[in-house]
Amino acid sequence: MKTIDFNRSDFYSFKKKILFRDFSLKYKKMIIKQKNIINSEIEDISSLDYIRNNSIVFINKNFMFKNLKKNNVQIVTNSDEVYNYHNSNVTLVNDLNALFNYTSNELFLHDDHIEYYDEFENINNSQISKFAEIEDSVSIGKNCFIGKGVKIGKNSIIKNNVVIKSSIIGENSIIGDNTTIGSTGFGFDFKNRGATNLHPHLGIVLIGENVRIGSNCTIDRGKLDFTIIDENCMLDNLIHIAHNVKISKNCCIAAQSGISGSVKIGKNVTIGGQVGLAGHIEIGDNVIIAAKSGVTKNVADNSTIAGFPAMDIRKWKYNIINERKNRYK
Amino acid sequence: MKTIDFNRSDFYSFKKKILFRDFSLKYKKMIIKQKNIINSEIEDISSLDYIRNNSIVFINKNFMFKNLKKNNVQIVTNSDEVYNYHNSNVTLVNDLNALFNYTSNELFLHDDHIEYYDEFENINNSQISKFAEIEDSVSIGKNCFIGKGVKIGKNSIIKNNVVIKSSIIGENSIIGDNTTIGSTGFGFDFKNRGATNLHPHLGIVLIGENVRIGSNCTIDRGKLDFTIIDENCMLDNLIHIAHNVKISKNCCIAAQSGISGSVKIGKNVTIGGQVGLAGHIEIGDNVIIAAKSGVTKNVADNSTIAGFPAMDIRKWKYNIINERKNRYK
Amino acid sequence: MKTIDFNRSDFYSFKKKILFRDFSLKYKKMIIKQKNIINSEIEDISSLDYIRNNSIVFINKNFMFKNLKKNNVQIVTNSDEVYNYHNSNVTLVNDLNALFNYTSNELFLHDDHIEYYDEFENINNSQISKFAEIEDSVSIGKNCFIGKGVKIGKNSIIKNNVVIKSSIIGENSIIGDNTTIGSTGFGFDFKNRGATNLHPHLGIVLIGENVRIGSNCTIDRGKLDFTIIDENCMLDNLIHIAHNVKISKNCCIAAQSGISGSVKIGKNVTIGGQVGLAGHIEIGDNVIIAAKSGVTKNVADNSTIAGFPAMDIRKWKYNIINERKNRYK
Repeated sequence: MKTIDFNRSDFYSFKKKILFRDFSLKYKKMIIKQKNIINSEIEDISSLDYIRNNSIVFINKNFMFKNLKKNNVQIVTNSDEVYNYHNSNVTLVNDLNALFNYTSNELFLHDDHIEYYDEFENINNSQISKFAEIEDSVSIGKNCFIGKGVKIGKNSIIKNNVVIKSSIIGENSIIGDNTTIGSTGFGFDFKNRGATNLHPHLGIVLIGENVRIGSNCTIDRGKLDFTIIDENCMLDNLIHIAHNVKISKNCCIAAQSGISGSVKIGKNVTIGGQVGLAGHIEIGDNVIIAAKSGVTKNVADNSTIAGFPAMDIRKWKYNIINERKNRYK
Repeated sequence: MKTIDFNRSDFYSFKKKILFRDFSLKYKKMIIKQKNIINSEIEDISSLDYIRNNSIVFINKNFMFKNLKKNNVQIVTNSDEVYNYHNSNVTLVNDLNALFNYTSNELFLHDDHIEYYDEFENINNSQISKFAEIEDSVSIGKNCFIGKGVKIGKNSIIKNNVVIKSSIIGENSIIGDNTTIGSTGFGFDFKNRGATNLHPHLGIVLIGENVRIGSNCTIDRGKLDFTIIDENCMLDNLIHIAHNVKISKNCCIAAQSGISGSVKIGKNVTIGGQVGLAGHIEIGDNVIIAAKSGVTKNVADNSTIAGFPAMDIRKWKYNIINERKNRYK
Repeated sequence: MKTIDFNRSDFYSFKKKILFRDFSLKYKKMIIKQKNIINSEIEDISSLDYIRNNSIVFINKNFMFKNLKKNNVQIVTNSDEVYNYHNSNVTLVNDLNALFNYTSNELFLHDDHIEYYDEFENINNSQISKFAEIEDSVSIGKNCFIGKGVKIGKNSIIKNNVVIKSSIIGENSIIGDNTTIGSTGFGFDFKNRGATNLHPHLGIVLIGENVRIGSNCTIDRGKLDFTIIDENCMLDNLIHIAHNVKISKNCCIAAQSGISGSVKIGKNVTIGGQVGLAGHIEIGDNVIIAAKSGVTKNVADNSTIAGFPAMDIRKWKYNIINERKNRYK
């Protein structure tokens, strides 16, 4: 799936541009030092994957030292290494997470803000945002919520009691009853817990063509960019897909499985029921993951794995047979 | 529970009868050969469990060689053995799954069709099909969806934001909030993935008397016949019951367990939380399955099992104690 | 969180006071013997944790022999030991569970009764009980159900298609889409199965300030008192919290985990995804529970555990490495 250069303000009300100078005055207690900050107004936040013009990018130590000057980007970091590497447009801070939260909340309203605003029409007892773009041929069931900026492609079917926000859905896709798509990801830092300290999520969910999502699933949106479920994927019921996950085309996931944040899954992957994938791992193409597996690390293309921690399925079976032989008589 | 000879068109709009001759012309590219096809019009699809008159039955190699002539049934198979066994009314094809899908979609409209049609009344902000039969004494909460053909017996309670379609529910049963009953089963073949290639599901859910389903559960309907939850069963929250599952009376299932397709469960079975059952297995009467078990094969009456793959609970405990003794010091 | 002396009739319609003498006549077949029963009318049921005046308390053998006289309480027990210990206000019965059910159902109407009554206003297509107390600043989404007696504190956000009943929610909390809060707990006895034999649940859910509950979660209410989620807790999606669970402040629970009935969880506990906790156990402060663990017994403060049955994580890792070394080559 080609990711789309989406317009954040289609989904989240833009509050106002901020001169970075004013911003750094406001949060000066959190700033250790900075050099040659940009003069212009800040109007967005970028991830390193999708650099937007006139934005702030928040960088921790995993940064790969991109040249960000051409985009008029201000770097905010908690890493001395990153700070020293750049000779302009860089600010060193202590608490990167907190400053990310403040910045996001100053630039955009989102649905964890009480002031978040949208306008609705009641169509067949579903609440459809006036700012959603839904093809005429789409079928929407009863008691649904379709929020601001949502786009739904031709001939897709949204069943009943479905909640969709901050999402773009392709053609010929089916979303099952009581499913939630585009909800806030579960991002936080352990120091500052609670609802008001959660990371704002200003990204979206991208669902490709011919995708089938079952009933009572939850698919969280990306933090700044995308959660992706690519074309021809089939998801069963009660599945959890966390923020920033990318699932490539032709994948099949059985009921009650959960994919943690930022996992990347290749093409033609088949995942059994009640499987869990740890965060930030990569699963290759054509992988098969047996039911109830717990996958804790990257998996190579064409592997078949099972167990927890998941291992090659032949090894898993061997271990089980061995255990049966040598133990209990 | 005595299964009911339900009328498929109560739930799925019947499109039109098809002369089998016309049908086989239309799909002639998929047909290898056939002999003495029936003259009459086809008006339904049968499983081998419930043969309907004037229907097509799709048979793969597991067929038990029933005599189907008396019902005026046309056999469509991908098995040479089945083909050769019958001397009339039999068609040999390559891609049985695809032809099943085409046939189902030509005969009936269902809720994975954009054209699927139903008519509703708004009662207390719940959408109730005009073609549902709900006893006067039934209590239905807010924001529910009750679809075409649904029947609900006396004194049953449907809580709030519940979606029910293609289901028959007995007396004195309780369905919890945000639960989905009668959704499409997760049936497909691995070759042709994606929403438009899913197997149509034209069966129903049968729920007996005095059954309790918790909150945010999903119960998929049968493919051609029934998903059954028999009388006095009690299900906790966030449980998944797949298509064609049969649960006998007096079973108790704790939260977040999942039962895969076509599983049969005996009477008085108790299943702990977060248990998974693999597809097509049979669980005997009075079985107890400990929490978090993964059951991969048939289980005899009166067994108590645990672990993954699930085994006799005494063996499971012995293994754990042994592991503790001999390993980590 | 300081638990609140809540007024049961705010949530459950009080039917009528019963003279205990009349009550014991009505159920005399279930009564073995009694001595010096109270003269006054019964108007509530107590747990041993929160004794209410003019109530019945149902006691099995785990009773700690409190002096209950000052509250004008009638003890009903199935334990000879308890019966003999008290010289007045005590009734010995055979089937304590059944009598608990009868009593609850005679005193109060609740949402498993077909006659349960509430009155609603339609606000933005959400159904809000006229007997709910919701601060003006609260944001409530679409297609929600907010039942009788529910209180929601300032600046809290209830998203869409949420069901809340029998709950008190603090300030600045966020409840995710399609979540169910305050549903009936899964309490029953194995002898008498089925919807009509479930234990009535007449308690509530208490959610503190700054709590975040994700999407499609289920939080069951207490049986007589509270299910508690204390301030600053953060819950991800598809989580199940059973009746009578107490979660202390600053806990963090990842997706698809389930906490069984009456579990107590200390402060600052972090629980990974797809974890299960067995009923009635206690987890200490600052505990970390790795993803997919199955916790079967009490856990001391500051432990880090993993596996099923969960053990010290170092032991768990040692066992896994050992298994890899000694088995499959």
